[in-house]
Amino acid sequence: MDLETLNSMNYEKFLDVFGNIIEKCPVITAAVWSRRPFSSFCEVEGEVYDFIESLPVSGKEGILRCHPDLAGRELSSGTLTMESQEEQRQAGLTSLSPEQRERLTLLNTQYKQKFGFPFVIAAKMSDKDKIMEELTARLQNDPSVELLKGIAEVKKICHLRVQDILRKGSPFPTKL
Amino acid sequence: MDLETLNSMNYEKFLDVFGNIIEKCPVITAAVWSRRPFSSFCEVEGEVYDFIESLPVSGKEGILRCHPDLAGRELSSGTLTMESQEEQRQAGLTSLSPEQRERLTLLNTQYKQKFGFPFVIAAKMSDKDKIMEELTARLQNDPSVELLKGIAEVKKICHLRVQDILRKGSPFPTKL
Repeated sequence: MDLETLNSMNYEKFLDVFGNIIEKCPVITAAVWSRRPFSSFCEVEGEVYDFIESLPVSGKEGILRCHPDLAGRELSSGTLTMESQEEQRQAGLTSLSPEQRERLTLLNTQYKQKFGFPFVIAAKMSDKDKIMEELTARLQNDPSVELLKGIAEVKKICHLRVQDILRKGSPFPTKL
Repeated sequence: MDLETLNSMNYEKFLDVFGNIIEKCPVITAAVWSRRPFSSFCEVEGEVYDFIESLPVSGKEGILRCHPDLAGRELSSGTLTMESQEEQRQAGLTSLSPEQRERLTLLNTQYKQKFGFPFVIAAKMSDKDKIMEELTARLQNDPSVELLKGIAEVKKICHLRVQDILRKGSPFPTKL
């Protein structure tokens, strides 16, 4: 995809392509369309990050709450977005042993009870052992630190999804 | 549903029930969960409206862009959310004559070209003739007026969806 194509997209096409770069938050992509024309693809990401940063704490917590648990109920029931499904698969979370799944479920539950939002990590950049280690460590943090860490991971996931769209020329079909 | 049930919901349950009171914007519902405990159901709506009002113009435009066209491609392809499907059905938009559909498609296209977001109206409170009349009239407005009108309709839709949830005791299953 080139810049001309990007800047010629109406909002519907833009949403079809970039609607899930922030998990289940097409409203952010839809808002960012107002900022066109873009001088680069990085600028699209930058506008997304600026929009997120402009939100109050509750809005940032809201973004985290739109993310699925790792190896959680959406994975079991097949209701993950295509992007999340692929990311969790790549991290090995679709092939956990029963003991690993049980341990992850327990840690996820403890994390959600403590923070009021799910543990978010760019799973694609990691593997199941590192994810388990990271989750155990982050469970000890203060809520304000975890909000920052979670949003930083949301941005990493966004970057990887944009890269994926540019590499493949066409996105995963978004299920929203 | 009573207040005790409302205030005892974890964010996942809250999203299951109220996730689509703003069309395809679960992030808003998810943000508002941070404001619990609520002293009434009106307060939930009030917090949603305050969150929307706190957004920049691009964010409000983004919310409108998450709404489907009336009798548009999502209705044809069966990809409307359950809530929108029911609202468009009640307004008679699932039983248009070919001429009516053609006219509505033309008006929708003109509207989107002029404003950069779709025509949003609380369809459930209206019928197809009134909707067509209103769309024709609103097409003449300035963009700043239409943004206000569109967001006012978003709030009406939200109110009706909350009423529906309270009346039925359980929501439409949300497809997000």
